[in-house]
Amino acid sequence: MKTENLEKIRHSTAHLLAAAALELYPGTKLTIGPAIENGFYYDFEFQHAFSEEDLPRLEKKMQEILPTWQSFSHREVTANEAKEFYKDNVYKLELINEIVEKGEKITFYKSGEFEDLCRGGHSENPSKEIGAFKLLSLAGAYWRGSEKNTMLTRIYGTAFSTQKELDEHLVLLEEAKKRDHKKLGKDLGLFVFSDAVGKGLPLLTPKGSVVRRILERFIVDEELKRDYLHVYTPDIANLDLYKKSGHYPYYKDSMYAPIKIEDEEYMLRPMTCPHHFELYLSEPHSYKDLPMRYAELAHLYRFEQSGELTGLQRVRTFTLADAHIIARVDQAEQMVNEVLDLIEYIASAFQLDKGTDYHYRLSLGNRADDKKYFKDDLAWDNAENVLRAVLEKRKAHFVEATDEAAFYGPKIDVQMKNVNGKEDTAFTVQYDFVMPKRFDLSYINEEGVAAQPIVIHRSSIGAIERVMAFLIEKYAGAFPTWLSPVQAVVLPISDKQLDYAEKVYKALKEEGIRVELDDKKEPVGAKIRRATLQKVPFLCIIGDKEKQQAAEGGLDVVSLRLRDGSDGGVITVPDLVKRVQTDIEKKL
Amino acid sequence: MKTENLEKIRHSTAHLLAAAALELYPGTKLTIGPAIENGFYYDFEFQHAFSEEDLPRLEKKMQEILPTWQSFSHREVTANEAKEFYKDNVYKLELINEIVEKGEKITFYKSGEFEDLCRGGHSENPSKEIGAFKLLSLAGAYWRGSEKNTMLTRIYGTAFSTQKELDEHLVLLEEAKKRDHKKLGKDLGLFVFSDAVGKGLPLLTPKGSVVRRILERFIVDEELKRDYLHVYTPDIANLDLYKKSGHYPYYKDSMYAPIKIEDEEYMLRPMTCPHHFELYLSEPHSYKDLPMRYAELAHLYRFEQSGELTGLQRVRTFTLADAHIIARVDQAEQMVNEVLDLIEYIASAFQLDKGTDYHYRLSLGNRADDKKYFKDDLAWDNAENVLRAVLEKRKAHFVEATDEAAFYGPKIDVQMKNVNGKEDTAFTVQYDFVMPKRFDLSYINEEGVAAQPIVIHRSSIGAIERVMAFLIEKYAGAFPTWLSPVQAVVLPISDKQLDYAEKVYKALKEEGIRVELDDKKEPVGAKIRRATLQKVPFLCIIGDKEKQQAAEGGLDVVSLRLRDGSDGGVITVPDLVKRVQTDIEKKL
Repeated sequence: MKTENLEKIRHSTAHLLAAAALELYPGTKLTIGPAIENGFYYDFEFQHAFSEEDLPRLEKKMQEILPTWQSFSHREVTANEAKEFYKDNVYKLELINEIVEKGEKITFYKSGEFEDLCRGGHSENPSKEIGAFKLLSLAGAYWRGSEKNTMLTRIYGTAFSTQKELDEHLVLLEEAKKRDHKKLGKDLGLFVFSDAVGKGLPLLTPKGSVVRRILERFIVDEELKRDYLHVYTPDIANLDLYKKSGHYPYYKDSMYAPIKIEDEEYMLRPMTCPHHFELYLSEPHSYKDLPMRYAELAHLYRFEQSGELTGLQRVRTFTLADAHIIARVDQAEQMVNEVLDLIEYIASAFQLDKGTDYHYRLSLGNRADDKKYFKDDLAWDNAENVLRAVLEKRKAHFVEATDEAAFYGPKIDVQMKNVNGKEDTAFTVQYDFVMPKRFDLSYINEEGVAAQPIVIHRSSIGAIERVMAFLIEKYAGAFPTWLSPVQAVVLPISDKQLDYAEKVYKALKEEGIRVELDDKKEPVGAKIRRATLQKVPFLCIIGDKEKQQAAEGGLDVVSLRLRDGSDGGVITVPDLVKRVQTDIEKKL
Repeated sequence: MKTENLEKIRHSTAHLLAAAALELYPGTKLTIGPAIENGFYYDFEFQHAFSEEDLPRLEKKMQEILPTWQSFSHREVTANEAKEFYKDNVYKLELINEIVEKGEKITFYKSGEFEDLCRGGHSENPSKEIGAFKLLSLAGAYWRGSEKNTMLTRIYGTAFSTQKELDEHLVLLEEAKKRDHKKLGKDLGLFVFSDAVGKGLPLLTPKGSVVRRILERFIVDEELKRDYLHVYTPDIANLDLYKKSGHYPYYKDSMYAPIKIEDEEYMLRPMTCPHHFELYLSEPHSYKDLPMRYAELAHLYRFEQSGELTGLQRVRTFTLADAHIIARVDQAEQMVNEVLDLIEYIASAFQLDKGTDYHYRLSLGNRADDKKYFKDDLAWDNAENVLRAVLEKRKAHFVEATDEAAFYGPKIDVQMKNVNGKEDTAFTVQYDFVMPKRFDLSYINEEGVAAQPIVIHRSSIGAIERVMAFLIEKYAGAFPTWLSPVQAVVLPISDKQLDYAEKVYKALKEEGIRVELDDKKEPVGAKIRRATLQKVPFLCIIGDKEKQQAAEGGLDVVSLRLRDGSDGGVITVPDLVKRVQTDIEKKL
């Protein structure tokens, strides 16, 4: 089924939901109801306390109305007509005024008895094309996403052309729910939020912090091996720095307000580029010094509306595995190639498949749009050709997107799919020919003359917080051993084996294995269940048999059980250590 | 010589400097001139452009006047008399008004012909007691340290009772100058400042970042071994959090202004305590869970006046190796003991001697001062006894300081001496019985009843930036191998050995050694000098002899030279690798 048709079906079903809501609950104020990825929503202001229990009633009413929707018709209306129609609805009135301001036409779309302010994009015959639909969930949503406005009731739903497609989608949703990183983060004790600390500011628990520390060290060590120069630069800077870089007008709305220190204004930094340029500028360079690959695990701060904040996925401060490669033009192609090598290496360590889990998108500028893109046609052509050539030579599957570049040059977006099948730009590789001019970056070339380098802005994995959200969902919380917060748990069957269990626990700990001892006074079945729910890879069960065997054989042993429930047999402690260490080494 | 007498000598010499300045440059405005650690200063407003060349003239004039200063006399004057005397001096007038406001007496002190507004504290007979003095340096200094005021000329000097003491001190100063971390930081390329980024915000270069990364990982790994729970928490938080903690009124002046995000106010955090408490509060705890040692490499932000900023020593944002141990009261003594064990272990890794490089100070509260210290006499007694008992049982040399505690309890200060002999509180171990109440921290005790824990606030090493400043000066830039940004450099004598030099370079790099290849077209002497100035521990010289020997013997060899100039003889590459790795392992 074509995406376009699916969108029409879903948009039509949103109208159907609005019609049902109005019929069942007269006085309900309609606002907007777009098709979104995987479904649609509609935001209502109800006159009663709407609850989950209302959803089946609404669904039933929608089923009743649907057969009467044989077509969609539309008409153009004047502003006055539209305002008269919606005279009791402040939301629609606001929308109408905006349409008028833009000088656009006002259109009403109608199917059956229901008519709504709309721009169109519906099924021709909803009763035939909407094969199956379902209302999925409820949420509070501020009008236009702003906390200052009224809180509305948002109803999410989805629709398909066949019941079979809907059923398959619902199975997928059920699976995704189990993998939801916000739920797993709580169940596995990986991170928490605190109202006192504030919105969009996760606190990583000791367990969540293990995952983050390992991720960070893995990335830094790998980049160091590849000749990146890892640095530490401050996460606040003078506002003038962002005026100089030209970022300020573009990023103003996503930056936090300035802080006055003595007579100057300082900003929480939204990006690292100018800091790295200042480091480059602190000494002279020759052509032999290039490329210089400045890298940093950079704390960045970008404003997100409170309604948009989502677990570790969308936060108000995050840590980007960032880098800026300052290179000669003739090195550009090799640099981009190296970056893609690194990205693919790191992705493979997380068992991500290129093509299925992620793919590349080449985002191009628009020569005609001087406001959005820096004017330099030749530089754009060169840069776009370099990026395209790299992708083609690597035989990488990629799509091209126009009008998606940065203001300073084209980029390769790394597009990742999460467990909901939703595709997002996880991070980017950008070719920049503007910043070197703005910051007057230069080097002395082979002829002894000052020349201008180019800059590649890139991440190797994206923001650590987002990576964590992604990986929690990908692994459904069952991290591979090298990333597991707890790699092994020692479970004595009773207090009689406690001394021996402690000995095993200490032996594993001394080998650097992240191990816990469960000495609670509970049946071992309960302990096994708890450790399995916590998704610990290695469960070391210790009863009289194991204690006895150790006493006789000289080597300590445990009965191994894996988190998938399978039996690992009796194993000596040194063999277990070796097994865990091998997993870690192989990133399993 | 008693400190008190030395202070009197120096304070008297400051008067002598003022007298000479006034005589040589009539119209000069006097401000203040206190004795400080290791000397004195006087701040002047000169009517001419004062320069270094004026110092010898001043010194000569001081020598001329000194014999006439046989005593100090003083008299009390009225406010009007004082104001009349200083009618052309806005600085002294400001001081006089403040004395009046406080209801204190106004006194003038006189020796020879010179009289100055002063509180006293001079030598009885300056001409006899001031054995030797010297003017050392010039600096700009804002009146009262504030950027908004006039910039004055500060003249630093020192004085002793004998010439011999002065000479010894000057030798020490010369040595300290060579070790100054700001100078070495520049010479060795460890960090830079950028006007564009802002004041007090150092940017660590790739080399400085190596040192920091190793320090950080060393501390984190050591703390993890000792059962600390390392976490990551956000470096901004809602202002209300600091109101709840009670920090706000005490720390307001050292916090940056709030940032408005939607309808809330957020602060750059000045400390980590409340974040860790919120983590503790995110789940219930039993007596078995305690102690819980939350630790973090925490980005903190505290306001410093621009005039006070000094290299990496005093900055506007820093990273503290912070921790909060939440423990039962009966565990307090053991916890403090463990913390001191850790501090001493880490100090020993940096070859710091307890007693000479650092010592402990027990800082006590003042039961009478309810404003400065939380009122709870019993809790203060208990806490002070715990800290004193730990120090006594360890037979640690320590001094007691009254009225130096935190508002929530007493503390052990770790006092460190820098290369100038200046003693500072590097970091602290604090016993806190107030925060647990404020945050309602609790655990279920053995009887099943909710009980209140105590909190130990502590660092294990202090702020990473300050540690770096301290270590740069301690090692005079010659970091031990495990901390060296570059551990080895390969120096081919000519291009004829370049291929072989590259082979050696690659072999060392593959073993994880931080190595550089100096392939500049220069005499090897110049290369050796550069590497020695850069304080690289291992210089690997490669000539025809070494290349030949390698070709014959099968094993690659280099001629080793150490940064102290000593000859390390011919060594095989595998032996060199082993030697470097052993140094790293032993933290040499």
